[in-house]
Amino acid sequence: MKHVNLNSQNSVFMAITENKKSRTLVNLIGVPSLLFVMWQGGYWFIGVFTALILLAALELSDLVRQQKGNPLTYLLMAGLIGLIFAQLCEGAIDQISILILVGLLSLCVEIFRGEDKPLLNMATVNFGMIWLGLLLGSLISVRLIPEHGFTITVAMFVSVWTCDTFAFIVGSKFGKTKVLPSVSPKKSWEGSIAGLVGAILFMLILFYNGAFGDWLCLTDVIAIGFITGGFSQLGDFAESLLKREAGVKDTSDYLQGHGGILDRFDSLAIAAPLTYLYLQYMSLI
Amino acid sequence: MKHVNLNSQNSVFMAITENKKSRTLVNLIGVPSLLFVMWQGGYWFIGVFTALILLAALELSDLVRQQKGNPLTYLLMAGLIGLIFAQLCEGAIDQISILILVGLLSLCVEIFRGEDKPLLNMATVNFGMIWLGLLLGSLISVRLIPEHGFTITVAMFVSVWTCDTFAFIVGSKFGKTKVLPSVSPKKSWEGSIAGLVGAILFMLILFYNGAFGDWLCLTDVIAIGFITGGFSQLGDFAESLLKREAGVKDTSDYLQGHGGILDRFDSLAIAAPLTYLYLQYMSLI
Repeated sequence: MKHVNLNSQNSVFMAITENKKSRTLVNLIGVPSLLFVMWQGGYWFIGVFTALILLAALELSDLVRQQKGNPLTYLLMAGLIGLIFAQLCEGAIDQISILILVGLLSLCVEIFRGEDKPLLNMATVNFGMIWLGLLLGSLISVRLIPEHGFTITVAMFVSVWTCDTFAFIVGSKFGKTKVLPSVSPKKSWEGSIAGLVGAILFMLILFYNGAFGDWLCLTDVIAIGFITGGFSQLGDFAESLLKREAGVKDTSDYLQGHGGILDRFDSLAIAAPLTYLYLQYMSLI
Repeated sequence: MKHVNLNSQNSVFMAITENKKSRTLVNLIGVPSLLFVMWQGGYWFIGVFTALILLAALELSDLVRQQKGNPLTYLLMAGLIGLIFAQLCEGAIDQISILILVGLLSLCVEIFRGEDKPLLNMATVNFGMIWLGLLLGSLISVRLIPEHGFTITVAMFVSVWTCDTFAFIVGSKFGKTKVLPSVSPKKSWEGSIAGLVGAILFMLILFYNGAFGDWLCLTDVIAIGFITGGFSQLGDFAESLLKREAGVKDTSDYLQGHGGILDRFDSLAIAAPLTYLYLQYMSLI
């Protein structure tokens, strides 16, 4: 028994090392590539993020399959492409029409499939259109903001990463009071607040170094800090909740040690739409 | 045993008579009221159909509760009001923003609820926004079409009713080949085709009596006949599928012998958005 235990401890240790290695590799390649794509904008950004959103749709389908559902993944993927297309070619078709068409098809096709969970299947396709297409898809809207698109996209990504890093460091050292142990057993209020402070601090550093020129005022910058450092953490919890229900650790291994697309972009699926809505309704775009 | 059987047969008979009575009553009051509301248009139509859509949201929640889900019904209802408001006051807020906000809230609030089926709950709210808000809500868009709104709304409703009636009469007499016995055991191809023919015939009668003036051509009228008589039947199957899964006969008894709102408006939730999209993309509105 001891031998077996040692072995399993060894293999856990090796798995962690392996995991760390592949995390470092993904970081080394992923982060610069992501920054390059953000810098390029246009079709580069749209292409890469369309691909990521489609992979996220596969992950959502997998989560639903864990609950004996079987959503129309290809319809969802076609619909997501349609939503992005409608965003880019406003004259041709609008996003509401795409949502209506996919909604109609999700109802009508399900009739002939004889699946066990038609409600879950229909609902997932429409949920995916909103969560992945409209929320995560807001990343594309943010990057396409004329003139300021690159700055605000990088600011958003890096402040979300800053939030994660502050939360992890402070949480690991001083984390005592759990936020929602039943959803994310490791997350503490100490870490969460540190993450929020970190994100706001990062936004302030950008602001006082003139990154936003005369576009955003101090209040705007703090508001966006609350979005990327505060609300974005809810995205992480929501995704953990879905994984916990499905009984999986990661939504996929597309990003090696980082898990899946949903694992990495859950915070941005909250931060991006809120940032966009904020800028839109404050008449800043 | 025989006594009990007789008794139960008696009560079934009485229930059917009672049901027929209340059906007749609902028809006698309901159909003229509905026509009056259609004729009035404006706030009358918007008010009544907003109320119906909200009742349908309660019915959808009940269907989900049969599967141990517990969706955020109030969020869905507030979101549906928001969608209708956005449609009427285009300058203030757009429908995509409402869908994004409700999507965000459905993810974020669910975290704190500790429910058994978070995925089903989140997905249902977003599904409801699309099915009830965008699809069934298209009824309001159709009625608000300038100049022709009343004509096309009445044409749509009455041709869907004609389809149902033809399908029922022919189906009961000659129905042999079942369409999808596992979903709707009673529906036959004979009935379905008769329904389609009836709806197209009704549209042609309107057309040749000049109901559409020079607005719609023969092709348009036949196309709308296919929508109200053909595709609309899929809405009925989809709703039956959800009821079958939930193990209920009617979605509610709001309309007495007619069942619930979803039972009565399932076909129109397909016919209205398709008619609207058809008119929109054929540049007829």
